[in-house]
Amino acid sequence: MSDIYELQNEALAFRDARDWAQFHNAKDLAAGLSIEAGELLECFLWKDAKSADPAQVREELADVLVYALLLAHEAKVDLPSAIREKLAKNALKYPVDKAKGRADKYDQL
Amino acid sequence: MSDIYELQNEALAFRDARDWAQFHNAKDLAAGLSIEAGELLECFLWKDAKSADPAQVREELADVLVYALLLAHEAKVDLPSAIREKLAKNALKYPVDKAKGRADKYDQL
Amino acid sequence: MSDIYELQNEALAFRDARDWAQFHNAKDLAAGLSIEAGELLECFLWKDAKSADPAQVREELADVLVYALLLAHEAKVDLPSAIREKLAKNALKYPVDKAKGRADKYDQL
Amino acid sequence: MSDIYELQNEALAFRDARDWAQFHNAKDLAAGLSIEAGELLECFLWKDAKSADPAQVREELADVLVYALLLAHEAKVDLPSAIREKLAKNALKYPVDKAKGRADKYDQL
Repeated sequence: MSDIYELQNEALAFRDARDWAQFHNAKDLAAGLSIEAGELLECFLWKDAKSADPAQVREELADVLVYALLLAHEAKVDLPSAIREKLAKNALKYPVDKAKGRADKYDQL
Repeated sequence: MSDIYELQNEALAFRDARDWAQFHNAKDLAAGLSIEAGELLECFLWKDAKSADPAQVREELADVLVYALLLAHEAKVDLPSAIREKLAKNALKYPVDKAKGRADKYDQL
Repeated sequence: MSDIYELQNEALAFRDARDWAQFHNAKDLAAGLSIEAGELLECFLWKDAKSADPAQVREELADVLVYALLLAHEAKVDLPSAIREKLAKNALKYPVDKAKGRADKYDQL
Repeated sequence: MSDIYELQNEALAFRDARDWAQFHNAKDLAAGLSIEAGELLECFLWKDAKSADPAQVREELADVLVYALLLAHEAKVDLPSAIREKLAKNALKYPVDKAKGRADKYDQL
């Protein structure tokens, strides 16, 4: 039930029932994801982090995820291995002993 | 291995090893996600959808997912149910018989 | 020297010297603007508003403006009148007596 | 009438009439600009560059500009000189003889 491929298949089934694959090229999906990320950020505009409406955050975050799942399919990205690969790469960029407790970018550590 | 909670835990372990929870308020995570979505979109800039570098798309999409997993944790959003709820809501906004084969927004169907 | 059309002409001259009009369709310019806005936002990530590097903010904001000027040209938008029209429209959406001192969206005033 | 400082003053007068300076820290203005850039990009979603609604593009682009003018004020960025400085810097990054007719990033020229 919390398998990421299963969630992806549900998003694809939604898309296919509406015959939307024809619009869903990777470039527009990336644009859509970026637009939804903006709507998610809007939940926090002029507010501190704790004052956003939880229901709105939940919904906008879900929108971002749906686009991410669809784009992963279209771009043939296997999400679990891509995420793990990125974490491993970041672990080299941000070694624990240098990065611990610091918010700096890797080139300033 | 493809369980979304497991992936989330791995992202959280990465964060905690670096003591970064102190920076990761929901607002900055939402900003971070939006910034990464921009970097993902940049893979497609001045190009058609099929000409982006697949390795770069894979990596930027992974970055987006990592932020989404961390933000979901911080904002106490259960991703599987949030995604399924959103798909169900969208199914009402975009009924198959009206939306099939059309890219219009729900208020123009 | 601070005329917006003059600044726009300088951006267009830069573009034309490089024969870049062929890439600068309105959709990619809008994507480029959004990507640059993300880079601008990154100046403030994990920081409070006063801790960003001023030189970096200056440079990223300039990038946003250059794209905005190029997109305005491509989309045949006259910026001064578009800005004034939008301020007039917002004045109706956010009447002073209702909006004064409040950060709420117009539909929640 | 097309002086960028004059446009900026009109945006500031709009803000001050509503007593909004208190919300307009540079970080939230940068977030707001990024959100509006997403709304501008949405005009082009699932469409080719020429099919966007011109009135909508005009309005969203104006929103981006208003935030840019307000942020420039808040971050003490003089826009005309920042834009010209950036064009001069880009001219070194993208020399005409190398960049002419190519959409590649400067590090791939």
